[in-house]
Amino acid sequence: MFLCVALNPALDVTYTVAGVRWHAGNRVTSVAQRAGGKATNVARILHALGHEAVVTGFRAGDTGDLIARDLAAAGVAEAFLPLRGESRRTLAVVDTAAGDATGFWEPGPPVPAERWAAFLGHYRGLLTGASVAVLSGSVPPGLPDDAYGVLVRAARDAAVPVIVDADGPALTGAAAAGPDIVKPNADELRAATGRDDLPAGAADLLAKGAGAVVVSRGAEGILAATPGRTWTARPPARLAGNPTGAGDACVAALAVGVATAADWPDRLRMAVSLSASAVLRPLAGEVDLDAYPGLLDSVVVQEV
Amino acid sequence: MFLCVALNPALDVTYTVAGVRWHAGNRVTSVAQRAGGKATNVARILHALGHEAVVTGFRAGDTGDLIARDLAAAGVAEAFLPLRGESRRTLAVVDTAAGDATGFWEPGPPVPAERWAAFLGHYRGLLTGASVAVLSGSVPPGLPDDAYGVLVRAARDAAVPVIVDADGPALTGAAAAGPDIVKPNADELRAATGRDDLPAGAADLLAKGAGAVVVSRGAEGILAATPGRTWTARPPARLAGNPTGAGDACVAALAVGVATAADWPDRLRMAVSLSASAVLRPLAGEVDLDAYPGLLDSVVVQEV
Repeated sequence: MFLCVALNPALDVTYTVAGVRWHAGNRVTSVAQRAGGKATNVARILHALGHEAVVTGFRAGDTGDLIARDLAAAGVAEAFLPLRGESRRTLAVVDTAAGDATGFWEPGPPVPAERWAAFLGHYRGLLTGASVAVLSGSVPPGLPDDAYGVLVRAARDAAVPVIVDADGPALTGAAAAGPDIVKPNADELRAATGRDDLPAGAADLLAKGAGAVVVSRGAEGILAATPGRTWTARPPARLAGNPTGAGDACVAALAVGVATAADWPDRLRMAVSLSASAVLRPLAGEVDLDAYPGLLDSVVVQEV
Repeated sequence: MFLCVALNPALDVTYTVAGVRWHAGNRVTSVAQRAGGKATNVARILHALGHEAVVTGFRAGDTGDLIARDLAAAGVAEAFLPLRGESRRTLAVVDTAAGDATGFWEPGPPVPAERWAAFLGHYRGLLTGASVAVLSGSVPPGLPDDAYGVLVRAARDAAVPVIVDADGPALTGAAAAGPDIVKPNADELRAATGRDDLPAGAADLLAKGAGAVVVSRGAEGILAATPGRTWTARPPARLAGNPTGAGDACVAALAVGVATAADWPDRLRMAVSLSASAVLRPLAGEVDLDAYPGLLDSVVVQEV
């Protein structure tokens, strides 16, 4: 079982408006909503690949209920702990006339110390049945800066490999706790390490304690660094589509690679082709499984 | 009991953002939500005045559940019929830096003919315990153009006085069915009758069949016309505050005036002062009951 930790899950709401009038009233032509957040997307993709995935973290209030219900409807198991307040919504107002979108992100509910302590016990219990733990997405207010570090150490204590997709202090804190893989994107790596050069930034996180650093670079593919070895993996061509969720597909592929003890070139082939399969789908958390095998054969992996 | 009909109730959501960045992502600093819609606001105000009010209409899905739950928390009784789909949300993005707001209105769920027939039976049952019926707000998709007319005739058949706050074809259709009072605002009256002159527009609706026409004119107060008599009622001074919901307070006061058989000058005094009490409160559906008695004494009513 893949254990996906969504400490701050969201209900993603999408409004479609043809020509938004700012500072005025607008009739919304369509409304879509579903459980979102990075770890939730990873779990959806693992489920689509036929793997058992469980999402844990915190859910709060009516919005938390909707998140849990939407995951159940998608066949994805959840084991959230309840929390006071309301889980956050993210709203994307998609303007079909302007061809762009405006986002509004509600704040997540704060996690009191008592709930964090309860979660750690709950998480340790779930780790006993996990083949890989994935920690992905933002850390809600109220948690210690080192929250991801604490979760990484608990996974290591339970001998469960752990992958972290985070940014800022959560990323550097997690790296120091010795996760198997950290997966920042290029901007996140630069921001967290202060280094423009990606191999240099990756080397910093390896030096901190990460077992491997996988840097997603959008259409250019992936850079992966382990102590002593570095690879690049590139998709065969630039794909048109929705890049949101490509990073989550990358993480899902890495998790499968770790669980199956695939070698690094194979992991990277899967990661790049599954990311590309996500770009081909309009919604984050979905992958085009018809296109996946063909993409898998055409990824170019090089050791550098 | 005051029966308030909300065919298309809403959950009003308010996002506060300090300086919205359009076409980009925005962190929402606070989220508020509550049951909204015009008839719901009227019921809240009647409840605040100590009267028994029941809201009926349709509620759908999770948002409908939230609307019903919020009314219950406010102590307002509801007797909604369930409907497939999702009740609508209205979102106001309040930009505290720009000092304005942008609104997004979700569509309401369509009402199939079978549900409308079921509602008419339900409504007739509720009318047996009602002293006044209030029909207020938008008509959801799927209903006949004359939906308000049908509800007015049912109230008249049950000998229950009925007040209508509507616009467009719903207003003119309702007027023809002979309601005791219609309450458009000045713009709505002009749009529905095509007449710039308010007394002339009011005369049109009286000729169609309305028992009285009360026109709300914002800070200028009210114009009221019955066959043969016309009054104006003005607040003592222009009040600073939130005019949203002032029309609902006007309707609530008219409903009380009808139920207590108050004469027209007294009804208008109550209507203008309760509207002013609503302006003093930040949220639609609330009135400042401390300010109300003083305002009541200072309204100027004149027959014209």
